[in-house]
Amino acid sequence: MYELTINLKPGAKIPLYEQIYAYIKEEIRRGRISSGERLPSTRALSRHLDVSRSTVELAYEQLLSEGYIEAQPYRGYFAAQIDGLYRIERQTSSRKPAVSKETKKYSYDFTPNGVDLNSFPYNAWRKLSRESLVEDQAELFRLGCPQGEAGLRNVISSYLHQARGVECLPEQIIVGAGNDYLMMLLCAILGTGHKVALENPTYRQAYRLFANLSCEVCTVDMDAKGMKADELERSGADIAFVMPSHQYPLGTVMPIRRRMELLQWAEKEEGRYIIEDDYDSEFRYKGKPIPALQGYDRNGKVIYIGTFSKSIAPAIRMSYLVLPEAVHERYRERCGFISSTVSRIDQMILQKFIEEGYYERHLNKMRALYRSRHDTLLAELKKLGCGFDISGENAGVHLLLHFRDGRSEEELISLASEKGVKVYGLSGYYVDGPRTADETVILLGYANMREEKIKEAVSLLGEAWF
Amino acid sequence: MYELTINLKPGAKIPLYEQIYAYIKEEIRRGRISSGERLPSTRALSRHLDVSRSTVELAYEQLLSEGYIEAQPYRGYFAAQIDGLYRIERQTSSRKPAVSKETKKYSYDFTPNGVDLNSFPYNAWRKLSRESLVEDQAELFRLGCPQGEAGLRNVISSYLHQARGVECLPEQIIVGAGNDYLMMLLCAILGTGHKVALENPTYRQAYRLFANLSCEVCTVDMDAKGMKADELERSGADIAFVMPSHQYPLGTVMPIRRRMELLQWAEKEEGRYIIEDDYDSEFRYKGKPIPALQGYDRNGKVIYIGTFSKSIAPAIRMSYLVLPEAVHERYRERCGFISSTVSRIDQMILQKFIEEGYYERHLNKMRALYRSRHDTLLAELKKLGCGFDISGENAGVHLLLHFRDGRSEEELISLASEKGVKVYGLSGYYVDGPRTADETVILLGYANMREEKIKEAVSLLGEAWF
Repeated sequence: MYELTINLKPGAKIPLYEQIYAYIKEEIRRGRISSGERLPSTRALSRHLDVSRSTVELAYEQLLSEGYIEAQPYRGYFAAQIDGLYRIERQTSSRKPAVSKETKKYSYDFTPNGVDLNSFPYNAWRKLSRESLVEDQAELFRLGCPQGEAGLRNVISSYLHQARGVECLPEQIIVGAGNDYLMMLLCAILGTGHKVALENPTYRQAYRLFANLSCEVCTVDMDAKGMKADELERSGADIAFVMPSHQYPLGTVMPIRRRMELLQWAEKEEGRYIIEDDYDSEFRYKGKPIPALQGYDRNGKVIYIGTFSKSIAPAIRMSYLVLPEAVHERYRERCGFISSTVSRIDQMILQKFIEEGYYERHLNKMRALYRSRHDTLLAELKKLGCGFDISGENAGVHLLLHFRDGRSEEELISLASEKGVKVYGLSGYYVDGPRTADETVILLGYANMREEKIKEAVSLLGEAWF
Repeated sequence: MYELTINLKPGAKIPLYEQIYAYIKEEIRRGRISSGERLPSTRALSRHLDVSRSTVELAYEQLLSEGYIEAQPYRGYFAAQIDGLYRIERQTSSRKPAVSKETKKYSYDFTPNGVDLNSFPYNAWRKLSRESLVEDQAELFRLGCPQGEAGLRNVISSYLHQARGVECLPEQIIVGAGNDYLMMLLCAILGTGHKVALENPTYRQAYRLFANLSCEVCTVDMDAKGMKADELERSGADIAFVMPSHQYPLGTVMPIRRRMELLQWAEKEEGRYIIEDDYDSEFRYKGKPIPALQGYDRNGKVIYIGTFSKSIAPAIRMSYLVLPEAVHERYRERCGFISSTVSRIDQMILQKFIEEGYYERHLNKMRALYRSRHDTLLAELKKLGCGFDISGENAGVHLLLHFRDGRSEEELISLASEKGVKVYGLSGYYVDGPRTADETVILLGYANMREEKIKEAVSLLGEAWF
């Protein structure tokens, strides 16, 4: 087979790789590419179609995973014998798909969970990864320290001290493959019989994790300063899960006074702990820096959790816990034997990334980038006039719009959607229904949207809503 | 500072990196390298001392993690102000060290958990890792599918079918960062209220995991065929954890008849499951290949767990579960939202590694290597005469010596230790004390020992024991 001449539509709502995938699948189904025929290499096809190689690779991967094509070592990709596929298709049909695919495609997506991945420091990461994979580095492939490598924990500890006012020794740090895993680990460390209080609204992933992992959970309402300490006391919880630097989703930055009240709550009884999730503290636009709650803690009451998902990329899967001494003791007794979930090679890459100054530069670059998107979004929103109030804009990578004109969240989302703009409602973050019936709140995340896009999208929102 | 001329002793029992580390630490402590002074680069020092660069890096890492030196981006390593270290040392002293270090150094170590890491396919891995870190591959840095990438699950599913007789769709596979993590996940999926039966002796890590993660655990004795099905029935357990391909530590290969009995046990009641840990099934020396238990299962009773730790390297941290439909349903309900613990880049590297035929070649190479070590060890042991029986030698990377001369495990280990040979006793693998008082069993792992070393070590064992 020479080439596939596919009539690609670059402006279409269907991504290029899906167009390629659909075309080839159809060709194979109809027998126009016959079983055993060799497909063009990804390199050749990408050149031929003038698309990036990864686009073709994604299409081939999809075809591979559905069995339409087969990969042969050193030889390339071949159209499969598709009779054999029927069995698989029958078997599959009885299951619901593991990940439900979004059907509607949007031109603009204000996802509050975005990270700008075009800024990922490919060159540095590639260089460090090459350096780490050195022939005589056999030691690196042995199972490492369950808590994570000493070198990495050391640089994280200095970073936390300098950047976040977190006081800890490398010994207190546990590196793990993402916040979800570390939360599972924390549940295993703390054991059963705890009641965890979360803010309402909150990061639902955390709520579901605690609820499904043998913890009792409850929610505590927030005021403008964060979780209400008196309500926390009444809740009967012994563990409070909070996000003081930038509450998700409300964007509240907890003032020092409230932080102290929470610490006092924890100190009142033995066994009470605060879990401080500092997920996106790297990005702050206004006001003085407030050190992490952990930095004020003198009695070992704060369990700190931080991540590189927001500041580098979600897919690198590295987060860390900082455990106070008593909890660390429990960790060693109950879970110290559990192997680390992060490969030592990846740990070494990250260590070098921080040590050699790449992380600092990357953070500065991302701060500037997000700040300018933040400023653009605010400026554009202000142009729209005064149909809403803005909150949560002092930190993080999303903000909130409050409407009091009686229109529902659903209505606003659907109006935006008609213009091709995806926005998000706050109600989904409430665990047992929103507290205020008199306002409708929309979330706009801007991490993953360029400034021109922001301008276009806000202007469309103006048309949609006013 | 120009160079450090360290009088290294390559034959000494202290590893080179420790010698370098100790030398520099002492120099800094005594003020002969003064605070702020720049150390030679790792490249320069390794050339100067004629050691590998990674050796110097390990030494520097240790010094860094203890605060004797500091790393400055682009500038290199500098001796630290060591006054500042006192506080840290004081604080540290109140804690026990996180990982206790083995003090005695052995010239020969028959660890049953070894993997030959010198055979790690550096070139292929480096090449694939370079290919995966492509500039326009931003998609790769987004959070992927919680179960693992479809492409990787697809190649694992074909591999399992061909190599292990495991029947599964890619949808049933969950990729995770190591067996420990997947076991934690499995506990979260199954929920509380289960009773897990493990073989006795068993892989203690699994026992501790289940015991610490809100499961009731019990042990069931083994006969020469594996876990006794009638005793399993009497135990009241609803989950059986077994290693049919090569029981750890006994090395038993479970015959088909016993596999069927276990499946019948599981089918007798709804909610009963068998967890099949197929940790080192890749290595087999004798007899016909027996497909995995999962391959015989017609009623969705077997939860299969496999790993690349033994066949590639422990540090790459990739294992997988194959869930029967009902368990997969529970997974989606209870844990489907938990993010994957393996980075997409690593998943893509592994996928390409398998797809492009590297894995097959690597496995063949390792099989030949381990087989020749296995044969050498058996031949050498036979030369020693008949003071013991050998078992567990048909598969895996370790075997067992049975002594019936009244000497204790402790005695045999200590005699070997005096000759610089580390061997392992079986009793540590029993959960509640060994069953047979009339024999003493020693484990010898050979994965990580070259043939000359095996010959030397066995000859020393002969001197020590007979």
